[in-house]
Amino acid sequence: MERNIKITVEYDGTNYSGWQIQNNTPETIQGVLSKCLFDINKSPVKLIGASRTDAGVHARGQVANFRLKVGIPVERIPLALNSKLPPDIVCKDAEEVTEDFHARFDARGKRYIYRILNSEYPSPFLRNYTYFIPHNLNIDKMREAGSLLIGEHDFASFQASGGSNKTTVRTITKLDIYRDQYQIKIEVCGNGFLYKMVRIIAGTLIEVGLGKRTVKSVGQLLEIKDRDRAGFTAPPRGLTLIEVFY
Amino acid sequence: MERNIKITVEYDGTNYSGWQIQNNTPETIQGVLSKCLFDINKSPVKLIGASRTDAGVHARGQVANFRLKVGIPVERIPLALNSKLPPDIVCKDAEEVTEDFHARFDARGKRYIYRILNSEYPSPFLRNYTYFIPHNLNIDKMREAGSLLIGEHDFASFQASGGSNKTTVRTITKLDIYRDQYQIKIEVCGNGFLYKMVRIIAGTLIEVGLGKRTVKSVGQLLEIKDRDRAGFTAPPRGLTLIEVFY
Repeated sequence: MERNIKITVEYDGTNYSGWQIQNNTPETIQGVLSKCLFDINKSPVKLIGASRTDAGVHARGQVANFRLKVGIPVERIPLALNSKLPPDIVCKDAEEVTEDFHARFDARGKRYIYRILNSEYPSPFLRNYTYFIPHNLNIDKMREAGSLLIGEHDFASFQASGGSNKTTVRTITKLDIYRDQYQIKIEVCGNGFLYKMVRIIAGTLIEVGLGKRTVKSVGQLLEIKDRDRAGFTAPPRGLTLIEVFY
Repeated sequence: MERNIKITVEYDGTNYSGWQIQNNTPETIQGVLSKCLFDINKSPVKLIGASRTDAGVHARGQVANFRLKVGIPVERIPLALNSKLPPDIVCKDAEEVTEDFHARFDARGKRYIYRILNSEYPSPFLRNYTYFIPHNLNIDKMREAGSLLIGEHDFASFQASGGSNKTTVRTITKLDIYRDQYQIKIEVCGNGFLYKMVRIIAGTLIEVGLGKRTVKSVGQLLEIKDRDRAGFTAPPRGLTLIEVFY
């Protein structure tokens, strides 16, 4: 009997073309995981991920599900999978879920953190996990601008072209900005995110922090609904998917 | 007029064959730094490093010195150097020192940290900076064994072959072991270290933590003076040179 298995995975996205398998691209997270799961399952696996993270984006708690045909005890899956995975992808948990569980459609929300390295010099150790900004950033103003985005809004200004959503209305439940030693972290929770939305929010708030954009202009973006008026798309390496809520 | 310049550098040693330039080896930290300093100095540079870190070993505060012939202001050296260096090597500081300063001979001591990842699953983000041990480690026993090594002793048992020192007597001034979330850190300060000494100490203390070796046996190693009786050489990726004292 087939079982529906939910796995939680952590990955360093630096060397991958993102989550989703695509034709003519080098390795993807979904591709590598599917290949290793095929080995365990003895037949092809359709792996459904909660979030299609972009190239270079990392995950601490990506969630995915698939149908398992073989009789391996579910608690042995992480170890079996990790013995086949490269060291930059790790399975941290596996559990059997009800037959109708769908990692993407059932997700109630997600938590992302965008990390900025705000110091005089770059760091060899954080180079792939932060966006280095050696200039002064006004965190109070960034926080003020960020708070305008909390709640249910039309985030059309914060969607990169290439998205395919019926509606651009989303709800941000939390947007916190805080300093952690030399890092500035932008933590965003919401019920769903448009294509590159978190990175465009990060880029826009960085422009506020640098004094290149007013706090007020950020609120106006929700009315204007024009991607070209929002800030730049902050680079993928600063972004990590922390958690998916069900 | 030539000036003697002391620089402090940070590096991720993962992709290098260690600090020291050697024939027929791929890139070294000293080699890459010397090449970039040549560009700035307009003539070859003899770069003297405080510590000859092994392949895969990292540094937060490696110190080196060289003679500068051109008139660039010393405070501009880090930025000039970082614009030429790859992102896994960063210069954090430069200062002019007296003519007789020698980064290696004048070093009064060094501080290293050996990091163990002690958790159920490995981490994609710490894979190059920690030694992953998923088993239970008795930190109290490791600490007890470590304390036996503090002070002036003959560390012949803790020297890998290939060292070329007149004496194997060294002084360890501090040896602390502590847990930091999922990591166990072994912090060692001393006036000088033999070839692979910190990694052999780490490997020996890990064997104590795993219950494969008694606390008492560690003290005995100081009398026995036999490398073969000490523990294994812990892998280089866990080791970081934190600071050099002058």
